[in-house]
Parts: sequence; structure tokens; C-alpha cells
Amino acid sequence: MTRPNKRVAILSPVAWRTPPRRYGAWETVASNIAEGLVGRGWDVTLFATSDSVTQGRLHAVVERGYEEDPGVDPKVAEYLQISEAFEHAAEFDLIHSHYDFMALTYTRLVKTPVLTTIHGFSSPKIMPVYEKYREGYFVSISDSDRVPGLNYLATVYNGIDLALYPLQEPPGEELIFLGRIHPDKGTHLAIEVAQQSGLPLLIAGIIQDETYFREQVEPHLDHTIRFIGPVDVAGKNELFAQARALLHLNTIPERFGLVLAEANAAGVPVIAMDLGSCREVINDGETGFLVADVEDAVRALGRLGEIDRTVCRKRVQQYFSLETMVEAYERVYSTIFDLEATR
Amino acid sequence: MTRPNKRVAILSPVAWRTPPRRYGAWETVASNIAEGLVGRGWDVTLFATSDSVTQGRLHAVVERGYEEDPGVDPKVAEYLQISEAFEHAAEFDLIHSHYDFMALTYTRLVKTPVLTTIHGFSSPKIMPVYEKYREGYFVSISDSDRVPGLNYLATVYNGIDLALYPLQEPPGEELIFLGRIHPDKGTHLAIEVAQQSGLPLLIAGIIQDETYFREQVEPHLDHTIRFIGPVDVAGKNELFAQARALLHLNTIPERFGLVLAEANAAGVPVIAMDLGSCREVINDGETGFLVADVEDAVRALGRLGEIDRTVCRKRVQQYFSLETMVEAYERVYSTIFDLEATR
Repeated sequence: MTRPNKRVAILSPVAWRTPPRRYGAWETVASNIAEGLVGRGWDVTLFATSDSVTQGRLHAVVERGYEEDPGVDPKVAEYLQISEAFEHAAEFDLIHSHYDFMALTYTRLVKTPVLTTIHGFSSPKIMPVYEKYREGYFVSISDSDRVPGLNYLATVYNGIDLALYPLQEPPGEELIFLGRIHPDKGTHLAIEVAQQSGLPLLIAGIIQDETYFREQVEPHLDHTIRFIGPVDVAGKNELFAQARALLHLNTIPERFGLVLAEANAAGVPVIAMDLGSCREVINDGETGFLVADVEDAVRALGRLGEIDRTVCRKRVQQYFSLETMVEAYERVYSTIFDLEATR
Repeated sequence: MTRPNKRVAILSPVAWRTPPRRYGAWETVASNIAEGLVGRGWDVTLFATSDSVTQGRLHAVVERGYEEDPGVDPKVAEYLQISEAFEHAAEFDLIHSHYDFMALTYTRLVKTPVLTTIHGFSSPKIMPVYEKYREGYFVSISDSDRVPGLNYLATVYNGIDLALYPLQEPPGEELIFLGRIHPDKGTHLAIEVAQQSGLPLLIAGIIQDETYFREQVEPHLDHTIRFIGPVDVAGKNELFAQARALLHLNTIPERFGLVLAEANAAGVPVIAMDLGSCREVINDGETGFLVADVEDAVRALGRLGEIDRTVCRKRVQQYFSLETMVEAYERVYSTIFDLEATR
């Protein structure tokens, strides 16, 4: 393995602290990779907000995340954070960027190779930047979340810490919904499934779309369909302990869907819309069911007995653990070092 | 002079075409400098939108200004435009940036020296970037629009094309206001001066603050105080031909105040609030009067006979012409080349 004597910079966003206190998916993954690499002996420098926490070296020029401190201007923080990392490029054998398109525009000004994990294309308007820098090194977080023409080295699934989500047995009675309350996440479809099946539903998550909550969720709440607000890890485990199945009836393609892996880790089968990466995370008929609509989902409820909850957890251990993710990135790094050596 | 064989990149913003069709002060100045340098034999590459016009070489990666085409994302356009110039840095002896703080974050990644003309500090939140890059090369557009600690090489006043604004004689009867209709520009104070003096007032400009116009301008309009909307160069000259004096009673410090020079070029005396750069543009008692309030301004109207209109124009020729500006930038460039040669 190439890790001895290799120095890696992990460039995390500065929307939130790394790791984030609650929300912040990109910062979570950046933190997991940084800490995983440190644990495996790499020399890691994390570029993140000043209040970030790492076992590696922290390099910070932005005091606090712009989502956490209204005094921080996002645009200013981004320019300062990204340029700082690239100004120190010569100190590293690799810069691993978790930034959106912005960091790409600095890559041709340094000799150090740059790997970009694309955590999602935030807008169609950013595509001209990917087009220009398509020869760079890229990782997708699912096979489905790719665009043609980019130099992808691999898909590396996000990993979760399985110790946080112990296996819950026996199965509970409730259907559960866990995620942002937003039409994209199909909270209203989960409610339809509960109503048609007559099973109770627990809804947890932050309300991201107030109008949607007020018009399409709140009117249906009663003693069997309940909303419990956002939950932390302990709250998620309580939810998983009560769960018959997780309903994840997303209405747009999922980029990765961390919650699917978390539920499976706890042994909870997932009924997911067959859109985007869901079929990469869920093995249909083994760790849950992929469905096309509400009727499909209701039918799938009758087949939950076919799912072995220990198999669900084992699949997460194999494909979606922190170790699997970090090892996959080590392979990508090796590929880059080999490619660079022959340049 | 150091210009032979020196290659200069002028980095213009991409909010508007360079030169802009109507508005766009920063693009106007960038264009004036680029064309002036070409005229004096420099090898000039203008980085600007694809539809820009130059006698030099145009290098463009952004099709149209983001203020002119809603399909262009400002953030994406800025990152693409700035990085493109810096990726070509080795082809130039100097990059002259007319960008806000963003371009500074690329300067340490190239060997080519970068001069930044600060056309105004767009927000207090951008100051951390200037703080970090304070050792760079900077030009202020007035002595008053400076912050402590930056490595200023000079103040270079914006220049105007005097051929566009011929001397208007004899003086007209009207007071004129020319500028954005906005509290910063003191349209309401010009109206007060007209009312107190009993003189007619012509107001020209775009309405930037609709509420302000409706509440503090419109109710005062009658046959002696008239609003004529925005004007182009021809419209400005018609206005200058009718003018007794220009009222420029700004309520915040002026950064430069191009309209003061334009009016003076036409021989029109200026009554300006003594805030910011106004006292650098107007020589009190010679090309107009610097005042502290409305009463002062009304008193100054009684002294307009003291102003020699040809002296107004001569002062603009001397200090605020295109030639003066371009020659001043040539001196700044020479200073930079000398400093770089001894590094």
C-alpha cells in the first residue's frame, strides 16, 4: 500500500463544523474519511472551520461555518478556505476535495493532484465548470449519480459507523419515515402507504418545506400517523427499535441515501422508490424492496417476513461501513499516485 | 518607458459586456484602460465576456454578462472567468485585475505580478480577504476610498473621454441632478435646494429605489421640478446645455463620482456634498462648491458667477482625462516591473 510517507489534505466545506454538530452531509463524509485515514496511519491535514475536530492536523482560516454564524459571508469564506488549501498544495501528495465546483478552478494552478468527490451536482448551472475540468480525478458517491464525460476513477459509497446503529430485534410494529420533510423525500407517499395499509407511521425529520408540511403532512396526523420532529442518533435508534420497515418513497433520484444504510444496519428493512441510487444501496428482496409507486409499496409490506434482519446488517458491513469506504479511497489514492508517477 | 515587449492582461468583471452597453462602471474603466494601452502600443489581452469589444486581444470563456442573461450564474461565471486568466498567467508580464476580492485568492498561485484596482469595497464582509492579501499591489480610485494597511502604489482617478462632453456655453437656467435615484445620491436634497432657491430642477437617472422615488421624489414633481428618466451621452449633453449647476448632494462618501467630472468637462459647475472623494474631483471655489448641507448649497448658488466654465473643463483635461488615467497606470506598471526585477 502506498500510504507510508504520503501526505493528504482533506478539503472540507465550511458551511458547518467538521464533523457537523447535527446536519451537514458533506462535512460528515469528509470527517469520516479524514479520521479513517488517520486511524490507518496516513498523514492527514483537514482544511475545515476553526472549531472543527480531528485526530489529524487541523488547518483553518474560517472561524465558524457560514450556516452557523450569520456574520460569515458564504462567498468570502469559500474563497478564503479553498485558496488557503491550494496555497499549501506543495506540502501534500494529494488534495482530496469535498467542495462543489469551486475548488476545481484552482486545480490547474498547482502541481499536486486533486481528487474531487462529487457529493451531488448542486445545480445544472455549475456543469460548465465540470465540463472544463473533466480530465481531473473524480469519485461518484453512487453509480447513478454520474454525468457522462467526467474522468471518474471509482464510485465510493458513503460509509456509516455501524457501532452507532446496533441491530434491533425483534421487529417493531411501526412504519417509519426518516428524512427532511420535503416533497423530494415523499413524506406524503409514506402517509398514503400508512393509510392504505392501516399500519401506524412515525415521521421524523426537520421541516424543510413549511408549506408542504402544513398542507400535505399535518392534516393527516392523528394517533396512528405521528410526527416527532428531528432526531439525533439516539432518537434514530429508538425509531429503528419500533420499526417494521423504513419507507423511503423519494420522488427524485436519490444521490446516495445514507438513511437507507443506517436503517439496514439496525436490521430494519427498507421499502424504497426505485429512483437514483436506491437500487445500489438496497438489494431487492434481500434487504428491502424497490417499488414503483404507493400500491407497490403496500404490496411489499406483505412480504416483509421474507427479509432476514441480520442479512440487512451484514450487507451494510460489507458495502457501507466506514472501513469499506476508507479502503476504497485508499485504492483510489493508489491509482492516482501510480498515474502521477508515470506522468 | 517600460512598455515595449510587455504583455498585460486586463481582467474585467463579467456582470456586463466590456465596455457596457449602458451601465457598468467597473467594466467601463477596464475598457478605457485596455483601449488606452492599446493606443499607446502595449500588448493587451482583455479577459471579458464573449460579446465584448476591444482593439486588443479578447480572451473570453463567459458568453454574456450575468446581469444581461439570467441563464448565466454569477458565481459560476466569476470562478470560470477569474481562473481562466490565472491559468494563462505565464503568458503575461502583469495581470491588472478589476475584480472584487475574488481574484486576490488566486494571486499567490502564479508568478506573474497582479495589480488590483479597488473600485470600491462592496461589503465590510470582504475585508478579511484584503487583510490576507494586503501585501499585493493596489490602486485606489480616490485618496478617500482607502483602508489602512493595504500596499497602495497610487491613487489613479477614473478618466473620461472629453470628446464625449463638449463645453456648453452660455450657462443654462436649470439646476440638474444626474445619477441613480437613491437616498445615497441625495435626490431629495437637490429637490430641497430647488424649492428653497426657487430655481427649476431637472432630475435624470435610473430609479434604483422605487419606494424612495414614490415617497420622496414623485410628490414634489411639478412644472419646475421635473423627472426625465435615464439619459445616455446625448441626453447628458442636452442636460448640461440647460444647466446652471449640477447638484450632487450625496449622503454617503463618494468613491469617485464620474458625473462630477463629466459635468465639469461640459463647463457645468458642481455643487457637491463634502463627503468622500468630492473634494478630490471638485476644486472648491474654482470648479464648483463643496457644501455641508442644503443651506450651504443654496448659498453657493449665489456664487456661481465666480466660476469660469473653461477652467472647469481644463481641470478635467488635466486630472480626469483618459490620457491622464492611462499614463498614471503606465507609471504604476513601471513601478511594479522595477519592484519585480529586484526580487
